[in-house]
Amino acid sequence: MKLCGKSLPIRSKYKEISEKKCQKEFGHAGNCEEFPFLNELSQSNPRVANKIKRDATKTTGAAWKSEDAGPNRIDRWVMLQDDDSLLKYGINMKVLKPTVVSKLKEKAATYDDCMEVAAKLTWHTYQMPDAPKCGQAIQTYLENRFGKLQSGATTCIVCKDNLSFSLFENAQRGKAEIETAHSNPREHNQFNVGFAHRECNIAQGNKTLPEFYEWITGIMQRINNQKS
Amino acid sequence: MKLCGKSLPIRSKYKEISEKKCQKEFGHAGNCEEFPFLNELSQSNPRVANKIKRDATKTTGAAWKSEDAGPNRIDRWVMLQDDDSLLKYGINMKVLKPTVVSKLKEKAATYDDCMEVAAKLTWHTYQMPDAPKCGQAIQTYLENRFGKLQSGATTCIVCKDNLSFSLFENAQRGKAEIETAHSNPREHNQFNVGFAHRECNIAQGNKTLPEFYEWITGIMQRINNQKS
Repeated sequence: MKLCGKSLPIRSKYKEISEKKCQKEFGHAGNCEEFPFLNELSQSNPRVANKIKRDATKTTGAAWKSEDAGPNRIDRWVMLQDDDSLLKYGINMKVLKPTVVSKLKEKAATYDDCMEVAAKLTWHTYQMPDAPKCGQAIQTYLENRFGKLQSGATTCIVCKDNLSFSLFENAQRGKAEIETAHSNPREHNQFNVGFAHRECNIAQGNKTLPEFYEWITGIMQRINNQKS
Repeated sequence: MKLCGKSLPIRSKYKEISEKKCQKEFGHAGNCEEFPFLNELSQSNPRVANKIKRDATKTTGAAWKSEDAGPNRIDRWVMLQDDDSLLKYGINMKVLKPTVVSKLKEKAATYDDCMEVAAKLTWHTYQMPDAPKCGQAIQTYLENRFGKLQSGATTCIVCKDNLSFSLFENAQRGKAEIETAHSNPREHNQFNVGFAHRECNIAQGNKTLPEFYEWITGIMQRINNQKS
């Protein structure tokens, strides 16, 4: 599906190094929009819609506030800039710990990849067994971009078990029980992203999924060897 | 082995609800001591000795500083007290989040259990393949309490793979790569405690080890079903 792609006004302080483009279908009627596929979720489940936008476009938050903790939830494409360019925006990568820098750089992604991720996550969301149904326009849009919506087709990308839409709402009491996850934690694009149980995402850590499966297979082999 | 058990002077502000007892063998010569088994590690590898003392006797640190984060690294036996008693020491459990309260309560353990854990962790440490050798007196003490020291016998309690003493030292750059771990995260005693790789401990989360193995076995079954 070809997208409209028309540039939209940017209000961010990272304006000059950012993009903002209409994600409606090329030749669409009406106003241009950046997240047309989220219009219904934004109404029915605003927390879920905001999570999709945030996880798709922002780096993760710093765990604490201090100069060396790094910027909190910054646009992923800003992190593609070199250190000198970032310094102009008050982000001094040189004072950050090496682990923080590498984590931020790992989260970097182009605007287009982030927008594809947002749409793909929305497609995954609507395929959770207890997700709300979307209207025909959004269904057609998502199916034209990513394929047929099948209720129940979305499972945790790590443990492959069912993933309930209701887990999004548990976020209210402390930590969310569903997280955006990556087959390869160092790549942020639509082919590499999905949802996972929080505990699964934590267990995967910074391993790729093949590495994770190899690791747990090794554990079970050692356990079984000990038994026999 | 029977321990001396003579009471030692306590300087803690939790004095009235604390114990401090000599852990040397009953009928020993010389001064009473609380951590006689750590005397050599305290000299050669003070960070390791301190970690053993801290992990054996203290709750984990609060991740951030604020009224509702709870006390940071408090004696585990203090957490056995009821809320009214804790309030006298300025610890108001009622203002803490339920998740923080249950975490603190899970870490509670008697003084005697904590001291047994400290000695057992020392026994585990000396059995890492690249650990320093201990002198005859400490070797005899540990062997009389827990059994023969065998170099290389200590493995990660989660993944059962080798655990190198050198991983303790990597703690300098950020997070320690070796952690004190529990077969059942809700019990702190010598039969339930050991060391694990940091990534293994994180992956285990709040599952017991049998629950963890059942969980990863289920994951591999689903992965293999998908392939076939």
